[in-house]
Amino acid sequence: AQTPAPEAPPAAPSPPPATPSPTPGGVAVKATSEGISVSSPDKAVMLKLRGYIQLDGRFFESKADRPGSTTLLIRRARPLLEGTLFNLFDFRLLTDFAANAPPLWDAYLEYRPRKEVRVRVGKFRPPVGLERNQSGINTLFVERALPTDLVPNRDVGVMVHGDLYDGTLNYAVGAFNGTADGASADTNLDDSFDLAARLFAHPFRATKLKQLSGLGLGIAASRGLQFGSASTTGEAPLRTMGQQTFFIFRTGTGAGETVIAHGEHLRLSPQGYLYVGPVGALAEYVSSTQEVNLGQQHARLRFESWQASASYVVFGGKAAYDGVKPTDPVGAEAGGWGAVELGARYAALDVDPDAFPIYADPTRSARKARGWGAVANWYLNGNVRVATSYDHTSFEGGAVDGDRIPEDVVMSRFQVSW
Amino acid sequence: AQTPAPEAPPAAPSPPPATPSPTPGGVAVKATSEGISVSSPDKAVMLKLRGYIQLDGRFFESKADRPGSTTLLIRRARPLLEGTLFNLFDFRLLTDFAANAPPLWDAYLEYRPRKEVRVRVGKFRPPVGLERNQSGINTLFVERALPTDLVPNRDVGVMVHGDLYDGTLNYAVGAFNGTADGASADTNLDDSFDLAARLFAHPFRATKLKQLSGLGLGIAASRGLQFGSASTTGEAPLRTMGQQTFFIFRTGTGAGETVIAHGEHLRLSPQGYLYVGPVGALAEYVSSTQEVNLGQQHARLRFESWQASASYVVFGGKAAYDGVKPTDPVGAEAGGWGAVELGARYAALDVDPDAFPIYADPTRSARKARGWGAVANWYLNGNVRVATSYDHTSFEGGAVDGDRIPEDVVMSRFQVSW
Amino acid sequence: AQTPAPEAPPAAPSPPPATPSPTPGGVAVKATSEGISVSSPDKAVMLKLRGYIQLDGRFFESKADRPGSTTLLIRRARPLLEGTLFNLFDFRLLTDFAANAPPLWDAYLEYRPRKEVRVRVGKFRPPVGLERNQSGINTLFVERALPTDLVPNRDVGVMVHGDLYDGTLNYAVGAFNGTADGASADTNLDDSFDLAARLFAHPFRATKLKQLSGLGLGIAASRGLQFGSASTTGEAPLRTMGQQTFFIFRTGTGAGETVIAHGEHLRLSPQGYLYVGPVGALAEYVSSTQEVNLGQQHARLRFESWQASASYVVFGGKAAYDGVKPTDPVGAEAGGWGAVELGARYAALDVDPDAFPIYADPTRSARKARGWGAVANWYLNGNVRVATSYDHTSFEGGAVDGDRIPEDVVMSRFQVSW
Repeated sequence: AQTPAPEAPPAAPSPPPATPSPTPGGVAVKATSEGISVSSPDKAVMLKLRGYIQLDGRFFESKADRPGSTTLLIRRARPLLEGTLFNLFDFRLLTDFAANAPPLWDAYLEYRPRKEVRVRVGKFRPPVGLERNQSGINTLFVERALPTDLVPNRDVGVMVHGDLYDGTLNYAVGAFNGTADGASADTNLDDSFDLAARLFAHPFRATKLKQLSGLGLGIAASRGLQFGSASTTGEAPLRTMGQQTFFIFRTGTGAGETVIAHGEHLRLSPQGYLYVGPVGALAEYVSSTQEVNLGQQHARLRFESWQASASYVVFGGKAAYDGVKPTDPVGAEAGGWGAVELGARYAALDVDPDAFPIYADPTRSARKARGWGAVANWYLNGNVRVATSYDHTSFEGGAVDGDRIPEDVVMSRFQVSW
Repeated sequence: AQTPAPEAPPAAPSPPPATPSPTPGGVAVKATSEGISVSSPDKAVMLKLRGYIQLDGRFFESKADRPGSTTLLIRRARPLLEGTLFNLFDFRLLTDFAANAPPLWDAYLEYRPRKEVRVRVGKFRPPVGLERNQSGINTLFVERALPTDLVPNRDVGVMVHGDLYDGTLNYAVGAFNGTADGASADTNLDDSFDLAARLFAHPFRATKLKQLSGLGLGIAASRGLQFGSASTTGEAPLRTMGQQTFFIFRTGTGAGETVIAHGEHLRLSPQGYLYVGPVGALAEYVSSTQEVNLGQQHARLRFESWQASASYVVFGGKAAYDGVKPTDPVGAEAGGWGAVELGARYAALDVDPDAFPIYADPTRSARKARGWGAVANWYLNGNVRVATSYDHTSFEGGAVDGDRIPEDVVMSRFQVSW
Repeated sequence: AQTPAPEAPPAAPSPPPATPSPTPGGVAVKATSEGISVSSPDKAVMLKLRGYIQLDGRFFESKADRPGSTTLLIRRARPLLEGTLFNLFDFRLLTDFAANAPPLWDAYLEYRPRKEVRVRVGKFRPPVGLERNQSGINTLFVERALPTDLVPNRDVGVMVHGDLYDGTLNYAVGAFNGTADGASADTNLDDSFDLAARLFAHPFRATKLKQLSGLGLGIAASRGLQFGSASTTGEAPLRTMGQQTFFIFRTGTGAGETVIAHGEHLRLSPQGYLYVGPVGALAEYVSSTQEVNLGQQHARLRFESWQASASYVVFGGKAAYDGVKPTDPVGAEAGGWGAVELGARYAALDVDPDAFPIYADPTRSARKARGWGAVANWYLNGNVRVATSYDHTSFEGGAVDGDRIPEDVVMSRFQVSW
């Protein structure tokens, strides 16, 4: 169950406390750790009410001039409505009530006549980033790593995807409005659509080498034209793991003082993971090239980022792309202790040197970021998770006197999902 | 079931896959194509969880200077909660998560001791426009026609309505805060309330002429005082079928440079429809008169609009005001092909000639719009609809060199409702 | 059931129309006047879908220069999702779709191994104000009284609370980001956390004096450091019962022209209530002291407010902190008339005299407010309430020519909750 199906709704591998309840009339009501579902007897309609809440704490090391402020915050507060119609159509509506979050994340309809061909229309995650396509409740760390800064978050589009050869190969190809790196979009800036595609293989899934069935390798790409304007530039800032901006293009009030996207936008991302028993590893590389204008000047700028992470489930479960499921949950009859997972990662991001000093201010925007981190996760049960992470990130450039001061941030999270 | 009851929640004519499920304890759970409902055995409480999502594509013909941009967008993403208490009170909460949409559409409580007298309080659609009072999932075209620009969308108020003489006559009369044409309002701009009323007859419904039971004729009106200010003018722009602004009053930064509503606001709308078997027709006329001020100048301006549309269900269902219900749905056991409907319309809107040039800029705002369109709808089943429409609209005035260029727009829609 | 447990989800004392419905498979579905709940057979998961809608009318006496505008408005439109996991964790997500309301009110997870120790993390009401900690559907009047202007509304934090000695003593202590008086906060302005605590006793609850079991006495306090900035000052305006601003600190565009919170923020609030049969009484006092800066000037300003209210249930129910539950509901089989309650109150608020004229403009901000009011409530049943209140408030200062004109406002409310 480790398919990185392009942002699949964390595909419900029915956990223990599931209990289908066929009532006399035939309506089935289920109450599981993955929410309540009600379905009609002929399966014409099935509806699920789910959601998750995350309370985060961000604690920055006390330094003069540090940009982050120590705070508690509701990171995500997301009710989720999912449904299936005639066992042929799925839909999903994922909303958010957290401060500064867009109210709508996912809203789509999917037609799936067979597992080889599924057609999805609406707003959802384009099939580009690997960690970006993990649900926010399942990422190893409290916040995703730097490569997520360079891939689209949510976009509106049409996508065909499916599983071939008994799940050995997953493909996805779609047309989208197009977004800035790391950003979401609700409408098209220009008249052109972006294409995004991914091939992802689990080479050993259909073989007898069951130990390696958790190996996944893939490559994703996107291409489109982006034409911004002074008000919607088509560019987004880059953020650290502590969610602080460390790179931003120049903006100004006069004409020609703001950098705007103007031309081709190309992304390429080889990616992969391996999950064997308690051990997990994930790596991805992203290159994003965007043509930009500043007044009469034009450039083609290339951003690169990569990360590698490793994790180990100390007890109580198995490592997985779609989250650790504790086998011995806190609160169950035979009261267990859940599962504990430890992890580490390294991430880097390089801005194109040609961006400085014309398109970005070297005293405000860093040209390189390098970070490593460690995390401990306690999955009390299928619904409750407590996490603490530490991230250290150093920079080249980005300050008046040379390098931006390193970021040292401890982040904690209390999460409930249902 | 073609009552244009003032914005009735699309009155659930229980479709095939309905299955009341009396559980031992007596709680009834239903799962139908119109959502999940749960009711207590004594009917004291009934709750329904419904909603709909629409993914639209807008494709404008490529012309220089065209105002619209080709884009995909989530047009509506609306969870809906409905309930009934003691079979005597209804309530409804309709929210929206689409970008640029107001978060709240409907929030009301209705007391209905009998079908002749129902009292509704809250936010809902005033009983004025005919197409406006159709649910956004049931309109014949992807977007409503020009008369909707002149009637209120949502308003907060109190309304009494009911059905008399076996449904032959429907009446509605209410007091509301008052809105600008085509707009919604959450609070009152001034200290006066608007009155709105409608009489709508189905003259043959209680007779033996069953073929004509789908004939409905009505007249609606509203009257109130609107006093705007420079910040909330009490006026709204007029939009084409492609949702582009083609008329806007003058605004400025200095005192007296902005046109504001100042005085009486009067609307009158004769309206009607006919649905006979596969054939449908709908027509409405709206006249809206508003007194306005610009500095020391005052005028009483009259806007007029009308539309006529016709539709034909090629196979699989019957034409209806509250949407085509396919008799042979895609996905059901005896897998059918749903229903297909074709339609055409003509619409016109005339701005008061006295609006130019003092209150509106003739080089930016058109004084006349004329449009025709065609649409094809495929209702796969009671939940899924795919639509494609084409609209051509021409203008008088509205450009520096005379007439605004015509709008040619193809709009597509994928819709799921539950 | 009159515990003022710090903003407890109005603790469901299962009303008559409750009907647990154990289906064959063991999933239990309940439909009661407090919403629909579904729980799995092993109680691992329980989910409730609730909510409320309030339509208000505000009618201000016609006077020249009165600040309030007569209007109808949706005051609250709040879906509510509650859940229980393994009978050990509770969560709650309370959102709002009313205009000008923050979208998120409550989002928390609570771990409750025993009733003496409960740990809550997320966004919720800090344990300070007494009337503030009543649910908005249960307050005696349409709008809360003046002391609510001085206590926090919602904040993000961690709180431990519990009931000791058979419910005789309730304690709560927590750390929060810190908010301005009367306001909610989503993030921390500074790097310090506020502490808030309350002790609340029901001295006779565990004794034989059952008549006095509805007596509750408590004391609450909060302390923290608040450091605002010109953009987020850390101060909020004070509002009348009619929700009109009557006090605001000075703001300006230049540096040093805006008053910002700068230093200690201290609140103290003795509070109590008594509910005996049909009679209710509630009183609270709040003192809030905040250090502020205006350019180079610094002051420590103390605001004080108190209120006392009394109520009498004429027929159909008993007075209670968590709302009147009609014993003979409208709409039930043996159709009754619900319950009617009358109430009166007095409230006062004094601004620190040292605030004038440096930190606040005496011609725009009042230094004293005194108000009294009366209310009539008709609880038709457990779901529907109709209320009408009248409030008269007079002021010292706050106008160019001396005293701000008194506010006379009639407020009406139609409320449905489920």
